[in-house]
Amino acid sequence: MEVVGERWTFLVLREAFGGVRRFDDMQRNLGIARNVLADRLARLVEHGVLERQPYQERPVRHEYRLTPKGLDLYPALVGLLQWGDRWLSGRAPVELVHRDCGAVTELQLCCGGCGRPVTARDMERRPGRAVADAAPDAARWR
Amino acid sequence: MEVVGERWTFLVLREAFGGVRRFDDMQRNLGIARNVLADRLARLVEHGVLERQPYQERPVRHEYRLTPKGLDLYPALVGLLQWGDRWLSGRAPVELVHRDCGAVTELQLCCGGCGRPVTARDMERRPGRAVADAAPDAARWR
Repeated sequence: MEVVGERWTFLVLREAFGGVRRFDDMQRNLGIARNVLADRLARLVEHGVLERQPYQERPVRHEYRLTPKGLDLYPALVGLLQWGDRWLSGRAPVELVHRDCGAVTELQLCCGGCGRPVTARDMERRPGRAVADAAPDAARWR
Repeated sequence: MEVVGERWTFLVLREAFGGVRRFDDMQRNLGIARNVLADRLARLVEHGVLERQPYQERPVRHEYRLTPKGLDLYPALVGLLQWGDRWLSGRAPVELVHRDCGAVTELQLCCGGCGRPVTARDMERRPGRAVADAAPDAARWR
């Protein structure tokens, strides 16, 4: 997983999407060094992916919640999670259950237009208007 | 983008999915230092995400192609790409065209069972059987 992403950041986000919000719970679940966890959480807060909120006074304790920007990382995170389950050995696969229909399933990438499943081969990429206007020869970039 | 992934690896994969296979083309498109590009390509080959194939003799030249394991990173990569377009300023958005239906569209995450679009809130995570068997109390992990 280290190849495509920063391992601990990925695991911290996986905890957050799993509903784990507190430092000590994340630390215990991940077996991560406290200073490394503190560093990754601080970076995610700094970039607006997580927000830090008090949940207790005397002493003050904080928890970490996904912001809308953070929640929007779900497709990327699921993509990596499922890829890891399929291709990296030695990991117990995670099951995802769709609450609405009850299916225990892998998630798919679908076209926002017709709704059908797609793979890389089905899609053509082209620069957005801003790029095309600025540099007409960027059209070769697909 | 640096927060969640290794920037150059992400960009090299983006090139590969865009059909760019040759070292010099990637180097020119990305404006990346040659030693950094060589390092990232070597790591991706080492992990079976890209494969290196000769396309010319005298002198021998190689190109880099996505393997099935690499192609399967498409959902994760698209997830990150679209997230970057929505949340990181200063980037020209990329348009994706679905060849089958012609829609210029964002891709969505859909349930593999019923096919409907899903977000993080729609899904419940539970450990796979291997985990549950090994550690029954892991059921709290969702």
